[in-house]
Amino acid sequence: MYSNVIESALAAAKASVGDRVKITSKSATYEGLLLPKIGLGDPNAIVLKLDSGYNIGIEFAKGASLSLIEKGKPLVFKPSSESGDGEISILGCGGTIASRVEYKTGGVFPAFSPSDLLTTFPEIKSIATIRGRKLFDLLSEDMNSAHWKIIADEVAAEVKHGAKGVVLMHGTDTMGYSAAALSFMLGPLPVPVVFVDAQRSSDRGSSDNQMNLVCAILAAKSEIAEVGLCMHAGAGDDYCFLHPGTKVRKLHTSRRDAFQTVNASPLAKMNYLTKSFEPLREKFHKRGTTKSLSLSAKMNDNVALLYTYPGIKPELIEKYSDYDGLVLASTGLGNVPANPFNDKHAKSIIPALKSLIDRGIVIVNSPQTIYGRLNMDVYTAGRMLDEIGVIGNYCDWLPETAYVKLMWVLAQTKDQKKAKELMLTNVAGEISERSILI
Amino acid sequence: MYSNVIESALAAAKASVGDRVKITSKSATYEGLLLPKIGLGDPNAIVLKLDSGYNIGIEFAKGASLSLIEKGKPLVFKPSSESGDGEISILGCGGTIASRVEYKTGGVFPAFSPSDLLTTFPEIKSIATIRGRKLFDLLSEDMNSAHWKIIADEVAAEVKHGAKGVVLMHGTDTMGYSAAALSFMLGPLPVPVVFVDAQRSSDRGSSDNQMNLVCAILAAKSEIAEVGLCMHAGAGDDYCFLHPGTKVRKLHTSRRDAFQTVNASPLAKMNYLTKSFEPLREKFHKRGTTKSLSLSAKMNDNVALLYTYPGIKPELIEKYSDYDGLVLASTGLGNVPANPFNDKHAKSIIPALKSLIDRGIVIVNSPQTIYGRLNMDVYTAGRMLDEIGVIGNYCDWLPETAYVKLMWVLAQTKDQKKAKELMLTNVAGEISERSILI
Repeated sequence: MYSNVIESALAAAKASVGDRVKITSKSATYEGLLLPKIGLGDPNAIVLKLDSGYNIGIEFAKGASLSLIEKGKPLVFKPSSESGDGEISILGCGGTIASRVEYKTGGVFPAFSPSDLLTTFPEIKSIATIRGRKLFDLLSEDMNSAHWKIIADEVAAEVKHGAKGVVLMHGTDTMGYSAAALSFMLGPLPVPVVFVDAQRSSDRGSSDNQMNLVCAILAAKSEIAEVGLCMHAGAGDDYCFLHPGTKVRKLHTSRRDAFQTVNASPLAKMNYLTKSFEPLREKFHKRGTTKSLSLSAKMNDNVALLYTYPGIKPELIEKYSDYDGLVLASTGLGNVPANPFNDKHAKSIIPALKSLIDRGIVIVNSPQTIYGRLNMDVYTAGRMLDEIGVIGNYCDWLPETAYVKLMWVLAQTKDQKKAKELMLTNVAGEISERSILI
Repeated sequence: MYSNVIESALAAAKASVGDRVKITSKSATYEGLLLPKIGLGDPNAIVLKLDSGYNIGIEFAKGASLSLIEKGKPLVFKPSSESGDGEISILGCGGTIASRVEYKTGGVFPAFSPSDLLTTFPEIKSIATIRGRKLFDLLSEDMNSAHWKIIADEVAAEVKHGAKGVVLMHGTDTMGYSAAALSFMLGPLPVPVVFVDAQRSSDRGSSDNQMNLVCAILAAKSEIAEVGLCMHAGAGDDYCFLHPGTKVRKLHTSRRDAFQTVNASPLAKMNYLTKSFEPLREKFHKRGTTKSLSLSAKMNDNVALLYTYPGIKPELIEKYSDYDGLVLASTGLGNVPANPFNDKHAKSIIPALKSLIDRGIVIVNSPQTIYGRLNMDVYTAGRMLDEIGVIGNYCDWLPETAYVKLMWVLAQTKDQKKAKELMLTNVAGEISERSILI
């Protein structure tokens, strides 16, 4: 609730939540949509959603004034249930790309179906014929392997029914994890499968949803039959990158080019202005090379991901003893506290890790630096991890991709040796080639 | 151990570990230092350290030959215990910058004292007078708050005894964490304190230790009396950046420019060729502004850092109930699985987090995207975290810096309200300013 002073000013201006208002203070003037107040913030601050899309709090101090510019127009979309008969299938799994501001809480939530997008973005019709349906509405931070399985099954169904490409609208928070999961679950693809979202919601002037969606459809029509993720390539409104599903990570909370390909190059570049598609790699899995999709959609949920840090306790490692698998995101080239020289203050976690492995738990290493490749030969700690059977030497996978892959591997085998073999096999581009492998 | 075939070839060539050898196979010729074989790798592979510094394994197949080029010259440094009386104090805390290959295991370990560096790099003498001593030899992955305290105490002693600047040689793995820790522990500084290391060890042609050390000394002589971290700024051998202690992260396993300033600009640029120092910010804490150092070196070790991920279990959160503090590295703008719309597959961790907070545990949020700022107002999950008392809305701190800061804050108070206040106070540049704060 706002303070009494603010509530009185709102009543006097006949303004309420959702309306466009102007606030003039001694130092500045702000205009935007009035959002409700929640939480523990300053009760004397008014929260506005500016045209830039950002929510800000403005101190409503003595001498400030508030006026109504325009009553709020509720964002109404006609929900439509038609599926269409186009060649490109768009499946809605939530995300900002199809979201609007929810005035009850002032938050953003996923709202309209793929077919609504055609009405909102008629431009799409000139690029491809579309069919679409909504699988579920979900904030992507709530997704887990159950949702990945639904998506995998539905993609398989679309491909079976003749889709020439599939676009998945999906929230950005965990889109990198889902893209990796689908890369493993779907196996070699007959057609492209493209994840897409927007970083700015559709009610914002700076929304990137139209460009991203158009570029995703260009990618879904292309020859690259892989799982990709299409998002803004830079700050401008000119092109998107198609990132490889197992090598992409969200690396910024809010920028439109938040997603980056890590330890590899993007698959392709889609120019929004010319509507052209340019592959950026010579080698890729070509449309039609695989005739039909062979799904392997099981995941083992009993896997955890743990970034290590100075002072990490051996007792914490022991708490993971009821898991089937554990991915470590270790420091540098793949090190953890190992205390090989018996420093009196250092505490090794090697015995705790070995005890997990002795119980049959599969432990995988990955670099918390995000960029670069593990080399567990260089330092003593890495060599000790290698010797107790921690998997991942020479791998340049993302911690998040290693986590998803271990879930997938441990759904197929719980045997440590077989799991190691499958982990170290490059299944979906998650391990980049090196010139010389030991 | 190598295979019998390899052992015979080594005996015939009179070559042993540490020697320079040439291996000729059908497809290629390799030359390098012979390393010992450990671990579980292919017993038929010979491991060499190439001149590029990389260790590689070469399949010693039929028809391959091995010859001795030169017997190994052990790297002998005359250890010296003199401290010197220079103005710049160099303290050794381990690290690659002062390391050599250890032929017993083939690994790299920290070896020579700061005063040895003067003999190795006479160039230093023309820049500054030096005093130096070794605090300890440690692989930085083994460091914890006990070592940070030793470093802080020793820096304080050096400053008290008139050092005009302090250089800390420190392993790269956890150098970012230590730089953040010292930023909080040391408080406003009378003189610069500069962390430095090398990504490539001193026995490698491509070692970056000389340039980094020279640039670190330039930074220690400068007007910027802050905790900084000096490393290669790019792939070239021309200049280093001085990164701010609380805003720097190792973002590559092996590149010489692995360290990056995140959500801020570097403090300064040191040109190695011209030996010049260029501040990159208008505002900084100037040498001499603070007259003496006021140490606050206590840390609470009962703090943990947890990156969240899809499928994270509420039961895992409960396992952290014996900690005093927990830093979450959450997805996107600061979200975790919260299931506000009661999806049947989603599992909220909000009740588990709330239960920790109810027991008095302080929970802090940070972005796993690394780059960008939290905004827990935008999505429902973030708002729910804010409402249960998770700290960190609008903060752009690194997860690792938030972890170190929480250790420091909880050494001063265990009161949740006071801890929140101190966490949200910008103590050492860990929270960048926003134009408008709610």
